[in-house]
Amino acid sequence: MYRTHTCGELRIEDSNKEVTLSGWVQRVRDLGAMTFIDLRDRYGITQLVIDENTPEGLSSKIEEMGREFVIQAKGIVRERSSKNKNIPTGEIEITLSGLVVLGPAITPPFTIQDDTDGGDELRMKYRYLDLRRQEVQQNMVLRAKMAHATRSYLNSLDFIETETPVLIKSTPEGARDFIVPSRMNPREFYALPQSPQVFKQLLMVAGFDKYYQIVKCFRDEDLRADRQPEFTQIDCEMSFVEQKDVLETFEGLTKHLFREIKNIEVEDFPWMPYSEAIEKYGSDKPDTRFEMLIHDLTDVLKGNNFVVFDSAEYIGGLCAIGCGSYSRKQLDGLTNWVKRPQIGAKGLVYVKCNEDGTFKSSVDKFYSQDDLKKWANVFNAQPGDLILVLSGDKPAMQSALGELRLEMGNQLGLLDKNTFKPLWVVDFPLLEWDEEGQRFHAMHHPFTAPKPEDISLLDTDPGKARANAYDLVINGVEIGGGSVRIFDSGLQLKMFDLLGFTPEQADAQFGFLMNAFKYGAPPHAGIAFGFDRLVSLFAGLDSIRDVIAFPKNNSGRDVMIDSPSEVAKEQLDELALQLKK
Amino acid sequence: MYRTHTCGELRIEDSNKEVTLSGWVQRVRDLGAMTFIDLRDRYGITQLVIDENTPEGLSSKIEEMGREFVIQAKGIVRERSSKNKNIPTGEIEITLSGLVVLGPAITPPFTIQDDTDGGDELRMKYRYLDLRRQEVQQNMVLRAKMAHATRSYLNSLDFIETETPVLIKSTPEGARDFIVPSRMNPREFYALPQSPQVFKQLLMVAGFDKYYQIVKCFRDEDLRADRQPEFTQIDCEMSFVEQKDVLETFEGLTKHLFREIKNIEVEDFPWMPYSEAIEKYGSDKPDTRFEMLIHDLTDVLKGNNFVVFDSAEYIGGLCAIGCGSYSRKQLDGLTNWVKRPQIGAKGLVYVKCNEDGTFKSSVDKFYSQDDLKKWANVFNAQPGDLILVLSGDKPAMQSALGELRLEMGNQLGLLDKNTFKPLWVVDFPLLEWDEEGQRFHAMHHPFTAPKPEDISLLDTDPGKARANAYDLVINGVEIGGGSVRIFDSGLQLKMFDLLGFTPEQADAQFGFLMNAFKYGAPPHAGIAFGFDRLVSLFAGLDSIRDVIAFPKNNSGRDVMIDSPSEVAKEQLDELALQLKK
Repeated sequence: MYRTHTCGELRIEDSNKEVTLSGWVQRVRDLGAMTFIDLRDRYGITQLVIDENTPEGLSSKIEEMGREFVIQAKGIVRERSSKNKNIPTGEIEITLSGLVVLGPAITPPFTIQDDTDGGDELRMKYRYLDLRRQEVQQNMVLRAKMAHATRSYLNSLDFIETETPVLIKSTPEGARDFIVPSRMNPREFYALPQSPQVFKQLLMVAGFDKYYQIVKCFRDEDLRADRQPEFTQIDCEMSFVEQKDVLETFEGLTKHLFREIKNIEVEDFPWMPYSEAIEKYGSDKPDTRFEMLIHDLTDVLKGNNFVVFDSAEYIGGLCAIGCGSYSRKQLDGLTNWVKRPQIGAKGLVYVKCNEDGTFKSSVDKFYSQDDLKKWANVFNAQPGDLILVLSGDKPAMQSALGELRLEMGNQLGLLDKNTFKPLWVVDFPLLEWDEEGQRFHAMHHPFTAPKPEDISLLDTDPGKARANAYDLVINGVEIGGGSVRIFDSGLQLKMFDLLGFTPEQADAQFGFLMNAFKYGAPPHAGIAFGFDRLVSLFAGLDSIRDVIAFPKNNSGRDVMIDSPSEVAKEQLDELALQLKK
Repeated sequence: MYRTHTCGELRIEDSNKEVTLSGWVQRVRDLGAMTFIDLRDRYGITQLVIDENTPEGLSSKIEEMGREFVIQAKGIVRERSSKNKNIPTGEIEITLSGLVVLGPAITPPFTIQDDTDGGDELRMKYRYLDLRRQEVQQNMVLRAKMAHATRSYLNSLDFIETETPVLIKSTPEGARDFIVPSRMNPREFYALPQSPQVFKQLLMVAGFDKYYQIVKCFRDEDLRADRQPEFTQIDCEMSFVEQKDVLETFEGLTKHLFREIKNIEVEDFPWMPYSEAIEKYGSDKPDTRFEMLIHDLTDVLKGNNFVVFDSAEYIGGLCAIGCGSYSRKQLDGLTNWVKRPQIGAKGLVYVKCNEDGTFKSSVDKFYSQDDLKKWANVFNAQPGDLILVLSGDKPAMQSALGELRLEMGNQLGLLDKNTFKPLWVVDFPLLEWDEEGQRFHAMHHPFTAPKPEDISLLDTDPGKARANAYDLVINGVEIGGGSVRIFDSGLQLKMFDLLGFTPEQADAQFGFLMNAFKYGAPPHAGIAFGFDRLVSLFAGLDSIRDVIAFPKNNSGRDVMIDSPSEVAKEQLDELALQLKK
C-alpha cells in the first residue's frame, strides 16, 4: 500500500497515528538540526520533519533528494509547535520514520508554483509539469465540476445525453473541415464535425425530444487566442418548443452553474434585440457590466460646416464619466488607439465637460458652447465627464465605438471579473450579405428559421428578415448561441436557394436531412454553449487555453508531443494518397 | 405552446382537464362511428378519440392523416370505457376538439414498431426512423443512464473527468491510426487516438491522482460485428495504487451499475489467472455462467496405439451433461462444426455414457470399457452424459475446445442473458511471440509493467514473464482491461527494446513520455471499459451497433449520410495532397 492518507487529509485529531503518505517533494528546508520537507499531492501539502530522533540512514537519503522527487514517507502525526493557519494540514506534521524514493526527478525546467518562472512556450512543452501547478490543476477540477453540474441539471430535465459520430461527412458551408482519409473506402474522406448540428436535428426527427451532449468539435481555422482546432460544446436540442422555452431552460442551466460552482445568484437575464445591441453597445456581444451607452449623434451634429461630420454616414459617441480631466497626452493616446487598423477610425473628436460648466472640445472652431451643451444633453453628461465621438461608415464606426467603449471601461476599471452580467441577444438578422462573394451567408446557420412574421420578406427583401436566433452573452463574451430550426423541407430548400445552393448541391449535401423532414418532423430548436469559454469565464481567465488540459498553440501544434508530424509513406500508400511538392 | 403534457403523462386523476398534446401518429383506427388515434412521443402513447361530438371539419383533416404525421391535438381527458392495462395512460383518452398538422409524413419505408418489417440495410439508411422504434430508443436511454451512473460513481470517489485531445500524434504500434492532414502545417498529420493511454499517464505524472473520461476512440481496422471505427471507452487511471486497488474500484463501479441500472446484486468477482482460463475454458474470456470445464487428457489417453492421440501434442475434452442421447446426426453435426476452418479441429472423438453404465465411443477399437471408464472419471461423468475430445496442437485445440464449450452451452440453453457472471482474469503474459515477424508484441500494451518477481525473466526468458495486467470478463465478453504501468524510464526503454524499437525510434515515438518519467513519476495503474460492449451486455444484445445512435456498417460507411465521400480538389490542394490513381 502506497499511502494510508492523502497529503491534504490529516488534522490535529490524527495526532499519534502512524501514517504513510506519498507525493511530490515541494521543497526541502535544511535548518541544520532539523529538516522540513513539504510533501505535495493533488489534495494538499503535509510537512515532514527530520530531527535528531530520525533513524540513521534516512538523512543521507534526504540529501540526495531534490524537488519534484516522488517519495513514500512513513511516520507519526504530531502537533506542530508553530502552526500554519493558511493550509488545512497546518496544525500537524509527520516525524519521519521511513522513506522510499518512488520516482527520482531531475531538476524541472521551471518552478512548480503559482508564480512560476517558466515562460509560455516552455510550460507548453512540459505541460505535464505545468499541470502540477495548483492554479492550472484547479482549472481542470473546475472544468470537471462544471461538466458534472451541467449533466446533473440537464438529466434532471429528462434530456438524453446521446453521442453523435465524430467521423462524418464534409460540408463546404462555413469554416473549414478537418478531413480523414478512409482506408477501407480509398479516395474517400470522412470529416470531423464542426458541430453535431445535423445529427441533433435528426435525433429530434427520431423523437428523442430532448438531447444534449458535451462534445468535442473541430474547426480548421487560423487560430486566435480564444480559438483551438478542437473545442468542447454543451450541445442541446429540444422538440415541441418555442424560443422562450429554450431560453428558459438554458437560463436555468446558467443560473444553476453560477449557484453550484460560484455560489452566486444571478438575476433574470434581459432580452436585447440585436439591433439594440449594435446601436447602444456597438457589438452583438454587449458587455453590460457598465453603462456608457453609445448614442447616435448624426442628426444633432450635422449642419455646422464641419465637413468630416457633414460627409459622414454616421456620427456616434459615448460619455466616459469622470474622464474630463484627461490630459492632452491621454487624449492623443486614445486618438492613436482608435486609428489603429484593428479599430479603423479616421480620428477622434472629444468634448471635455469642465467643472465650471463650460466645454472644451477638439472642434471648438465649428461648435459653440451652446452646440456642445446639446451634445452633453444627449448623454446627460455632468461636469468632469468626457464625450468621445467617431464618425464615418455606420457599421464600422458602431463597431469602433464598441471597442472604444470597452477600452474606456477597462481604463476606468469597470470590467470587474467577479461581476457577471448575462443577457440574451435576440432577433438576429437571418442572412448576412457577402460583398466579395455577392451572395448571402447564413448569419447563424442554414437551418435557422426566420421569424414567422418575416417569412414573406424572403421573397421581397431577404436581407431584412430576422431569425428566431439567440445568443447568450456574459460580460461581453459570447457563451452560446442557437436558434429555432426550420422543420419543413420546402422552407429549408428555399433557404438553401437564398444561400446560393443549387437544388442538386443542396441535395448532395443535406439531402438526408430534408428527406428526414418528409417523414414527420417536430418543431424543434436548440442551442450550444462554448464550454471552454464558459469555464474560462468562471475561472476569471482571458484565454480558453488555460482550461484545456493539453491545448495546441496558435499554429495548431501540440509542442509537447510534437504533433502534427510526418507519417510513413506506407501509411499514405494504404490511403491512396501522396504529398504534393 | 405546443403541448401541456407529454403522451406518457396523463392519468385517471387528470380527467376533465383540457390538454394539448403533440406527437407522432402511431396508428389510426376508423371504426365508423368512432375513430381512434394512438399519439406517440418518447414518453408514451395516448389515445385520441373522434366521435359524433367532435367539431365539424376535424374529421376531414383526420382522413388526410397517415401514420408518422406529427400533430398537435387539443381535447378533454376522459376515462376510457375499455381500459388498456398494458400502458400507463391506458385508463384515459382524449376527446378531440382541435387538431393541427405540424409535420406531414409520407409513408415510412418500414413500420415503426418493435417487430418492424424493415431489413437491416433499410433501417440503417433511415436510421432516424429506426431510432423512433421504442426498442432502439430505449437502448439509447439505457446508454445515457449508464454513462451518468458511471460518472456519479467515479465523481464520488474523487476522480477528475479530464478531456484529452482528439488530434494527437500517429504511432505505428498496434492497430492502424486514422490520420488527419494539417492545413496549417502542410505535409504533416495528426492522428485520432486509439486510446488516451499516453495522455492519462501524463496526467498521473502531472499529479491528477485519479482520472477518468468517457471518451471516443478510433481504430482503422477491418470491422467485425462488434467493432466500429469509432467506439467509446470508460477510461481511467490512478496513482499510488496497486493492482488490487484498481480492481476493487472498478469491481465497485460494475456492481454499482448492476445495482442502479438493473437492480441486480452481483457477487464478488473471482480472480482467475490467465493460464487457468486457457486450461479450463480454452479462452482468456471465460464464460462462467456454466461449468463444463475443459480437462487435459493427454496423460490419460496416450499409449493405446491410437495414432491420432499418440502423435498429438495435446488432448483435451469436456463433458456435456445430459447429451449422451445425441443421435448420430447430431454427433456428425458437431464433428462438422469443429472441422470448420474457424474452429480448426481435424476431428471429434466422443464417448457416450450410457444409462446402463456402459460406454459407446467413436474409438472403441482402441479403448476398452475400462479405459473409457477412466475418461469418464476425469469428468465425473454420469450416465446420460457425453464426453467430447479434441487433439492436436495445444493452443489451437484449447481454443477449439473453448469454442465447442460455448456451442454446447448454447445447445443446452446455458447462456442465459439474464444471468451475469463477472470475473477478473489476471496474470497475463507480458509478451506475445509473433512467429511471422519473429519478434515480441506487447500482449496488453508497451506501457504495462511486468510482475516484479518476473522482471529478471526479461533478460533470460522474456516470453515467460507475466504482466500486472487484468481483464474484466462478463459472460464471455471482455468488458475491460488494464494494467499496472511502468513508471521508470529505464524499464520502459528496456520494454521498447524487447519490442524491437531502436532507442531512436522509441525516443521519436514516446520520448515525451519517457522524458516525463524523469521528472518524478508516481506508481500508477489504469483500466478502460468498452462502453459500447458494456451497454449491449446490459441491453441483452449481441452487437454493439444497436447501442450506438448512428453506427457505421461493416465497410466503415454511414449509409444514412453517405460518408465517407469524395472531397473537392481545392480541399486537397489546400492540404498539399493528391489522390493516387
